[in-house]
Amino acid sequence: MAERLLPEDLNFDGPFPRLSRRLRLGVVGGGRISVTQATAARMTDRWEVAAGALSSDAARSKVRGAEWFLPADRCYASFDEMAQAEAARPDGVDAVMITTPNHVHFKAAKAFLEAGIDVMCDKPLTNEVAEAEGLEEITARTGQVFAVGYAMSCFPVIRQARQIVAEGGIGKINQIHVEFMQDWMTPEDVADAPHVKWRLDPEISGPTSCVGDIGTHAAHLASFVSGLPMTDLRAEFHVCGAPKPLEDTVFMFTRYQNKVPGTLMATRLAPGNRGGLRLRIFGSEGGLEWDLENSEQLKFNRFGEPDRIISRGHGHGIGPGAERLIRTARGFPEGIIEAWANLYTEFAMAVAARRDRVTVPADWLSYPSVDQGADGVRFIDASVRSHQSGGDWVTI
Amino acid sequence: MAERLLPEDLNFDGPFPRLSRRLRLGVVGGGRISVTQATAARMTDRWEVAAGALSSDAARSKVRGAEWFLPADRCYASFDEMAQAEAARPDGVDAVMITTPNHVHFKAAKAFLEAGIDVMCDKPLTNEVAEAEGLEEITARTGQVFAVGYAMSCFPVIRQARQIVAEGGIGKINQIHVEFMQDWMTPEDVADAPHVKWRLDPEISGPTSCVGDIGTHAAHLASFVSGLPMTDLRAEFHVCGAPKPLEDTVFMFTRYQNKVPGTLMATRLAPGNRGGLRLRIFGSEGGLEWDLENSEQLKFNRFGEPDRIISRGHGHGIGPGAERLIRTARGFPEGIIEAWANLYTEFAMAVAARRDRVTVPADWLSYPSVDQGADGVRFIDASVRSHQSGGDWVTI
Amino acid sequence: MAERLLPEDLNFDGPFPRLSRRLRLGVVGGGRISVTQATAARMTDRWEVAAGALSSDAARSKVRGAEWFLPADRCYASFDEMAQAEAARPDGVDAVMITTPNHVHFKAAKAFLEAGIDVMCDKPLTNEVAEAEGLEEITARTGQVFAVGYAMSCFPVIRQARQIVAEGGIGKINQIHVEFMQDWMTPEDVADAPHVKWRLDPEISGPTSCVGDIGTHAAHLASFVSGLPMTDLRAEFHVCGAPKPLEDTVFMFTRYQNKVPGTLMATRLAPGNRGGLRLRIFGSEGGLEWDLENSEQLKFNRFGEPDRIISRGHGHGIGPGAERLIRTARGFPEGIIEAWANLYTEFAMAVAARRDRVTVPADWLSYPSVDQGADGVRFIDASVRSHQSGGDWVTI
Amino acid sequence: MAERLLPEDLNFDGPFPRLSRRLRLGVVGGGRISVTQATAARMTDRWEVAAGALSSDAARSKVRGAEWFLPADRCYASFDEMAQAEAARPDGVDAVMITTPNHVHFKAAKAFLEAGIDVMCDKPLTNEVAEAEGLEEITARTGQVFAVGYAMSCFPVIRQARQIVAEGGIGKINQIHVEFMQDWMTPEDVADAPHVKWRLDPEISGPTSCVGDIGTHAAHLASFVSGLPMTDLRAEFHVCGAPKPLEDTVFMFTRYQNKVPGTLMATRLAPGNRGGLRLRIFGSEGGLEWDLENSEQLKFNRFGEPDRIISRGHGHGIGPGAERLIRTARGFPEGIIEAWANLYTEFAMAVAARRDRVTVPADWLSYPSVDQGADGVRFIDASVRSHQSGGDWVTI
Repeated sequence: MAERLLPEDLNFDGPFPRLSRRLRLGVVGGGRISVTQATAARMTDRWEVAAGALSSDAARSKVRGAEWFLPADRCYASFDEMAQAEAARPDGVDAVMITTPNHVHFKAAKAFLEAGIDVMCDKPLTNEVAEAEGLEEITARTGQVFAVGYAMSCFPVIRQARQIVAEGGIGKINQIHVEFMQDWMTPEDVADAPHVKWRLDPEISGPTSCVGDIGTHAAHLASFVSGLPMTDLRAEFHVCGAPKPLEDTVFMFTRYQNKVPGTLMATRLAPGNRGGLRLRIFGSEGGLEWDLENSEQLKFNRFGEPDRIISRGHGHGIGPGAERLIRTARGFPEGIIEAWANLYTEFAMAVAARRDRVTVPADWLSYPSVDQGADGVRFIDASVRSHQSGGDWVTI
Repeated sequence: MAERLLPEDLNFDGPFPRLSRRLRLGVVGGGRISVTQATAARMTDRWEVAAGALSSDAARSKVRGAEWFLPADRCYASFDEMAQAEAARPDGVDAVMITTPNHVHFKAAKAFLEAGIDVMCDKPLTNEVAEAEGLEEITARTGQVFAVGYAMSCFPVIRQARQIVAEGGIGKINQIHVEFMQDWMTPEDVADAPHVKWRLDPEISGPTSCVGDIGTHAAHLASFVSGLPMTDLRAEFHVCGAPKPLEDTVFMFTRYQNKVPGTLMATRLAPGNRGGLRLRIFGSEGGLEWDLENSEQLKFNRFGEPDRIISRGHGHGIGPGAERLIRTARGFPEGIIEAWANLYTEFAMAVAARRDRVTVPADWLSYPSVDQGADGVRFIDASVRSHQSGGDWVTI
Repeated sequence: MAERLLPEDLNFDGPFPRLSRRLRLGVVGGGRISVTQATAARMTDRWEVAAGALSSDAARSKVRGAEWFLPADRCYASFDEMAQAEAARPDGVDAVMITTPNHVHFKAAKAFLEAGIDVMCDKPLTNEVAEAEGLEEITARTGQVFAVGYAMSCFPVIRQARQIVAEGGIGKINQIHVEFMQDWMTPEDVADAPHVKWRLDPEISGPTSCVGDIGTHAAHLASFVSGLPMTDLRAEFHVCGAPKPLEDTVFMFTRYQNKVPGTLMATRLAPGNRGGLRLRIFGSEGGLEWDLENSEQLKFNRFGEPDRIISRGHGHGIGPGAERLIRTARGFPEGIIEAWANLYTEFAMAVAARRDRVTVPADWLSYPSVDQGADGVRFIDASVRSHQSGGDWVTI
Repeated sequence: MAERLLPEDLNFDGPFPRLSRRLRLGVVGGGRISVTQATAARMTDRWEVAAGALSSDAARSKVRGAEWFLPADRCYASFDEMAQAEAARPDGVDAVMITTPNHVHFKAAKAFLEAGIDVMCDKPLTNEVAEAEGLEEITARTGQVFAVGYAMSCFPVIRQARQIVAEGGIGKINQIHVEFMQDWMTPEDVADAPHVKWRLDPEISGPTSCVGDIGTHAAHLASFVSGLPMTDLRAEFHVCGAPKPLEDTVFMFTRYQNKVPGTLMATRLAPGNRGGLRLRIFGSEGGLEWDLENSEQLKFNRFGEPDRIISRGHGHGIGPGAERLIRTARGFPEGIIEAWANLYTEFAMAVAARRDRVTVPADWLSYPSVDQGADGVRFIDASVRSHQSGGDWVTI
């Protein structure tokens, strides 16, 4: 293809470049998360939503597609149909986002990869380890771009935190604590609500509910910022409040590379906590703390000095790697949709680079990869094995 | 026109509806704020950027337009040219956003209004009161939609604050304090930077620099939430730090309807303050406090009770009026671009309603109007008169 | 004894009464914590420091005693000597505070009890369970007053938190999380410092270092506020940073009465955390959160409502039980010494009531008792047993 | 006098020394503030309360004195009687604290000074400028020690803030903002309460109510930390809520030495504000912010760097000057009584030094002096003059 998407004089150190055209995105799944992600993709001005499988009912897919301003002939009733049709079009989608319930992720992702279409898939990547590893295998073989929806890693101050750790800013890591505390399952009858039911159904949600939904965000963030893979864990699942088929709460002891100890906790029954994803990393020379509920600030302590509060915004503790993910002037807040937009910006760069056959430096893009998605599935699997053993240590 | 943009069965109580097509937006001015606003407009999925006057140099306008994926024939070198050409097109823009330096606002806005095109104009609306009143007069006569860029009033918790006051939640208002503290002009040499220079040039910025840029945001927000127009003020302008042709700091005593006293302060030389737009309203039964640097939370006190912290998010203290401006689940933060997007959503509703000849209830839309923009210009003018008198009380 | 310390018309509902004379306090141990406690005792104006065993060197004890304005003949070189001499004086001490290193607690406390003198002993109560139970046995038999230094339970907002739980304010408890994060052991060479060395010496500190020093504060606070005894735990001890003879960090899963699950964590190597004793209790209807680093505020959430922030100070969410422990007007902060003073006020009431042979209502005084001290030792012992088993669940 | 209070080998750089005996303090006035101050004095272990004029009714003075464990013959019914009697005793008081209503301050202070007794007097020092200057004159002549109750200047982090300014940490000061926001006068009927009534009676409270009570704290703190005297002001008094004989709210523009501009605001009708004494100083290189409601932390920004949060506690941004005012380990909070105790410690040093005829270095003690008290009265007087002129600028 003569088309060139990235600039010829691509500068890997500066801001991410504009592309020569908007990339075409297909949407698989039609719930709230797909709206958030489509909004984010649109926000980048590097994507346009071009096709969708928004419902398994053909008529309904077209109705919903119309709300998205999609032409009727690109509103599909199944991902298989969509993968084949879009692959055949000269203006077919460059990539899809998969935001269906969990049990569809694997089949849908596989279908699009096999059709030559790049994929952004929500977490958990799959419900079984073998499936996740299957996707890893395909992308390793084909070189296709595959991102996973760990959007928390795309907040600018999280990127800055990762940079501080990498530069030795907190010394040798001694402890890692991460938790994700929500409260929306507090009401006794919430499990009966339609949008909740599938999250507690093992056929759909997979072997876990809370671990796969939010625990995996916590685990990803901890490894992403610390640069340390989690190697072992011991887990206990709990059902707090009303009985449920799957856990709503999990407590873990964790171990990371170099035998660094830690804890991980996730629950949806912590009244007063809305989005309490909180990461704390302590080292021999300092510590880092971040809370999604105060997502614009990073607490950075060098032992023996006053705490420093690093705010999103140009300069003042933010380096170039994080800065290129910032849209607004210092003091004007950004949020989670902007973090998703950062993921979609980097995903666009990767998709464009593959099409342009441009090799990019290893540290240019940090979007969560299929391998990280598979790590998440292995983490979930290990938590189940540990819980079933009565909380023994298991290797991930 | 047979086209109908709004649904026939429009429900004014629920969420804002989808339109039958994306509205077409023209961009006048090509700086950072136009990028923010275009991003916000795109985020709503109710607008597409369709044309632009991004530079007064024709070639450069086309180059920049290409970055925005605009066709070359809709990249103009002047607003006059753009107004005429777009008005003549069957697919011409439905509205424009004007984000030029201040001295162009009036002429550009007038040109588009006269061409029948609706307008979203950044603040300060104009540099002279007569100009602002001219725009009021035109829109009053033609019924055109004219919004002004007081985006701070579009945060969901600000809407909730306004609702609390309106419902008597803090009793009879006794005091209003508002301030906007920034720090970006702290460096001695900042005034020489190209993007700063025009803000200190009376020919471009108008009679004030800090008052018209951020003081006017503070004044708008105070009136918006309290429901009380500001009637009088006494002001002193200051230049802190390096000498400058216009003030960088202002202190005011203010008086609102019903003789409610208050203070207003704005500065760009407050190191450690990024976006310190802070509103406090105290009444006979309680108080409200909000800070842009922590934009997701509203402090609400009923005297004699513990403070309540109202967070953006569905339920938990957020009523339906604010709720329809919320995109993400509780705990997942939003920011200023989302506030702008709320402005562009309401603007889209107004533009569509005018085209559909639909009359909307008075309280359906709360986007900042041309009258509020003109109030801002009268506020700026009063501050100049007071300052020149040595800080006497003047009526706005 | 004709002397009557408490008023004849003692009102158990109001503020704590003045006594007819200051009680006489003896000090055993002369380190920083004894200064803090003596300051607190003096602050109540219900105690005077009257005697001391401030050093095992007789001359040095007199020198230090002089700094405390003690007469030379009441500066002792051993607790045995002090117990006998003071018991023999008509103006002998009413009670002693024991703030020696841990291994002396038991012997000293026993000596004073046997001499008929009431005791306030620092935590951990003893280094062995049998010793703690011995002290329980003596006090059960003699009716002597024995308080233990869990001063965190004496903050007014902690008392209010306990009251909220007791009144069902958060519904049925579902989860309890507590942690105590400090950073002072971060430097690699800190373990060599004289005031640190004994804390890592099993002969002195007992079988644990971090658990017995700060973990036990966390465990006490969690039970005190929730009203639920901890029944089981699994623990892993860690040495983060430089090698040490005892743990500096501990992670636990915990189980409270009614099988309520929880976590407990304590460390002294969390840079950026000074006094991070943080308690979170979540129930079926709400949650409570408190942090020693922000000790004047209690976060109280009723699910579905905005968070409430209860501040120390009269009214505004503080009930009478907590209010009588407050010294200053709302908005004027208090701290840890005031919490200690609250403990010493209640201890004074108990000592006076015993001397006056007055029976007090069960809920009049909430100072930490010898039984709670023994619970702390059993908790420490269980943590050791669990750690040694590789982290198995053990019953406390 | 052979008695020597301070050590012979007094080290002015280290912690404040113990004295050879407790100083004897007399209490004039018997309300809540006298309890707070007596508690603080006792906390230092450098003072004992030895005499009192706790009521103008002789019998009541003895009853109240008994509560303070005072001998009956040192419970007086008037300050005159007390001054004469105590001056005549060999064990007479070394100093008095005067905590009566405002209109008594001058006469009482004068009586004790003339009796050779040192004085700690609450603010406002007097109700008239001439009186304050009379007290300045006496102490200048006699060298007596005279402290004034601006205890806010005795928080350790406030001392650190002053040090940072003095060392140029924020560069050249450009703006000073200070406010004291309380809410206790919010209820409409509060003015009728007995403990409130005198504060609104010009015969007792003096020419102002809010300015003299809390505005003067704000003014003192701003000058204390900035090192700049306030030279001019313009003020407007307000009565918010129920009508009252004196103002409950004041707004000011202020000018400090070197023409540094600022604002000052005080009110007791700001629901949700308990002790909102907030200071902000901005300079050419940085800024400092402090809030009494979060009294343990100081925000320090160097422009271009992340904010730093300096916490009370040894090290970590606290220098030796502030450190010697700290009692507890980092992370264990202190409060306002400790700040008062710092004032009483320094006052004790000054009283002892005068008796020992020891000359101390100018920067050894920073307790608020009679001159600062007189500055406060001049500030109040200027505010009245300005308000009466309709808010003109007046020189202090």
